[in-house]
Amino acid sequence: MTKPKMRLGAFLQPTGQHLAAWRHPNAVADAGTNIGHYVELARIAERGLFDMIFIADRLGFLAEDKAILKHTVRNIAHFEPMTLLSALALQTSHIGLAATQTTSYMEPFNMARKFASLDHISGGRSAWNVVTSNYEDESLNFGREQHYSPAERYERAMEFVEIVTGLWDTWEDDAFPQDKESGVFFDDEKLHVLNHKGKHFSVKGPLNVARPPQGWPVIIQAGTSEPAKELSARFANVVFSAEQDIAAAKKFYADVKSRLAKYGRNEDEIKVMPGIMAVVGKTKADAQRKFDQLQDLVPPEVGLNLLSQTMQMDMSKYDVDAPMPEVDVTGKWSRAQMMLDLAKLNNWTVKDAYKSVSAGRGHWVVVGTASDIADQMELWFTEKAADGFNVMPPVFPGDLSEFVDLVIPELQSRGLFRTSYEGKTLRENLGVARPKHFAAS
Amino acid sequence: MTKPKMRLGAFLQPTGQHLAAWRHPNAVADAGTNIGHYVELARIAERGLFDMIFIADRLGFLAEDKAILKHTVRNIAHFEPMTLLSALALQTSHIGLAATQTTSYMEPFNMARKFASLDHISGGRSAWNVVTSNYEDESLNFGREQHYSPAERYERAMEFVEIVTGLWDTWEDDAFPQDKESGVFFDDEKLHVLNHKGKHFSVKGPLNVARPPQGWPVIIQAGTSEPAKELSARFANVVFSAEQDIAAAKKFYADVKSRLAKYGRNEDEIKVMPGIMAVVGKTKADAQRKFDQLQDLVPPEVGLNLLSQTMQMDMSKYDVDAPMPEVDVTGKWSRAQMMLDLAKLNNWTVKDAYKSVSAGRGHWVVVGTASDIADQMELWFTEKAADGFNVMPPVFPGDLSEFVDLVIPELQSRGLFRTSYEGKTLRENLGVARPKHFAAS
Repeated sequence: MTKPKMRLGAFLQPTGQHLAAWRHPNAVADAGTNIGHYVELARIAERGLFDMIFIADRLGFLAEDKAILKHTVRNIAHFEPMTLLSALALQTSHIGLAATQTTSYMEPFNMARKFASLDHISGGRSAWNVVTSNYEDESLNFGREQHYSPAERYERAMEFVEIVTGLWDTWEDDAFPQDKESGVFFDDEKLHVLNHKGKHFSVKGPLNVARPPQGWPVIIQAGTSEPAKELSARFANVVFSAEQDIAAAKKFYADVKSRLAKYGRNEDEIKVMPGIMAVVGKTKADAQRKFDQLQDLVPPEVGLNLLSQTMQMDMSKYDVDAPMPEVDVTGKWSRAQMMLDLAKLNNWTVKDAYKSVSAGRGHWVVVGTASDIADQMELWFTEKAADGFNVMPPVFPGDLSEFVDLVIPELQSRGLFRTSYEGKTLRENLGVARPKHFAAS
Repeated sequence: MTKPKMRLGAFLQPTGQHLAAWRHPNAVADAGTNIGHYVELARIAERGLFDMIFIADRLGFLAEDKAILKHTVRNIAHFEPMTLLSALALQTSHIGLAATQTTSYMEPFNMARKFASLDHISGGRSAWNVVTSNYEDESLNFGREQHYSPAERYERAMEFVEIVTGLWDTWEDDAFPQDKESGVFFDDEKLHVLNHKGKHFSVKGPLNVARPPQGWPVIIQAGTSEPAKELSARFANVVFSAEQDIAAAKKFYADVKSRLAKYGRNEDEIKVMPGIMAVVGKTKADAQRKFDQLQDLVPPEVGLNLLSQTMQMDMSKYDVDAPMPEVDVTGKWSRAQMMLDLAKLNNWTVKDAYKSVSAGRGHWVVVGTASDIADQMELWFTEKAADGFNVMPPVFPGDLSEFVDLVIPELQSRGLFRTSYEGKTLRENLGVARPKHFAAS
């Protein structure tokens, strides 16, 4: 029996996962709107046999703090995910194409169409990362002074996904005889009108795209709230997470899997994939040097701004080289106290503290040789903390190439990763079943 | 001085412009979701030096009349335009990419982003055909029992386009120094927040995509109502029309051009392009045979259904081989009386009548040799009935290839069409100026 294999996604931030990536000498500073750059990244990831490339998204940013923002690249000026992935579809042949799209400020009919279309264009390689929008900068672009409450956001999201999956099932798989002789283009008994009337949406259908090659495009979810986890349990094939230590990751993993039975699904039908920012070096010291070089590129004003967000208070008045002050975090979120504890434990300066947040942006950071990194990944995989990982190279394209050239062979030699694609569609490669049409016997 | 050149668009319906195209022996019946087919069409059109390919759109169809519908292909099951054109962007290098997208059931922020993104992906070749949605099948997919009134639709459309063009101007052209040394990614003085608060929309901005290579993607309009014409006069670079005789076309052309002065624009800044379905043959008889063959492929029930739409009454009870009956068209639209007049003049049967509607679907039909077709196009062009044409080949891919191989050289030899692309962007090829950023001195 062959060993189970881990799944890998490549998270394509424009210049890389690290906050200061764009300032690195090897970074492509104009990556956000450089299509050649993305074609290169997609092909490197496909050479590495990644399951998918993944594009995050946010519908805007606030320009209030331009003095800080002007040093950063994230969310500022980059391709829209669906147009980007459609362009990459014909530049690749096996890799999955995963886009974040929000249920808060888009319409279910348009969503169903876009993903069905991308799935046809790519021959069954599309995936939808279902999110809700919870930032003020987004709501203000859509005529709302305040964004939806968390409960309302997820209630809308659940209904939204019901509609989208329902629209994907408008047509049975064999609905189109396209018989020129008799003049019958489609079999009218295999056309199903949705007629959805719900609390938040009313969508008649039918969808004007044939059933996607994957039946339903792969559904990804990354929320950690209760309603988000229920949405995952009911619909998701992949769950992205941000866990920084194995104990928490195992707990999260078990929680996700435990919710599936309620919906008649088994544990294999959902793949839990935490993020990992791997800094690879030929030696440990080499890797550490790479990491330090990047950390030093974080402009102090940006680091302080990020630290202020973590602490939920203004930290810009403190000397960056002084010890981290023991501020009062009463009433702040738990991350503020965690930061104080870490700073105390490690005798951090303010700069040390903001560097710790800048690095992985909330994701697991591993610095070491290919073997060190594979050790960690193997541990998480075998200990049921992960079914795979969403790999977040610190700087593109170099760190993705290095991951492919150094870490992938190490994982393969341990029997932990594929040596060729198993199938043609993303579902086939991920090992999640193609949903039957509801009318199929 | 070189002669002025005509502009050409290639209108890519999946199987072709003719209602029965999909039944033709050379048609690609599964064209609607066959990406290889579209890649081939785009490349043929680019070989023919067309200014652009154009994709129509409609957000659904009504499934009430499945017995008729099942014989047809239009609007039923095909790619979504933005994903399709993004996929084609990297398969072509010069041709413009024009997509229809509605202002009725989408959000201005998302619209601005998609087109800006496609413009960056394609290096400045995107175009937006601005439409409003006026069919019940569309409104029912977006939670509305009734579609917007015409006045409201266009009032929304005008505000929508104001917002989208405003968002495209979020960033000045040189807003991104991306200076790794100093750590300045963008120049914060070159970022402009829109802060739009209007009657129908409230959109703060800024847009999170850099200014498009074309400044603004090309704007196309095809409406013929008063408010549609005002929208054209203010914003459009291209106007598509459906005119079947030169006198009406000249009148429409003069009308469009006469409205520009009010907005400080000159007549060259808008290109009027009527649709033309050209049926090309080696001889006139050859062309006529081709046309007749297609006309015979229209299933009677579909022809009768279309005729019923034209007559605004049920025509299915009449014998298709009997003379067209002199029904009472009091209170019906003018097209019903026009049909009766044509039928009487030509002694048409019911079948002849429905064939006349099936052919060009409201567009100008020319049947003849390449020289005949070029004669007609030249006449319209020199007589100021058209600045160019939206070419609608009856059946793909053959009739597009024939147009490129037979009609294009004829137009070129007359000095009426380019022999190589003039520029890199669609605006450069069309000869419409790149809009200056509002903050540019």
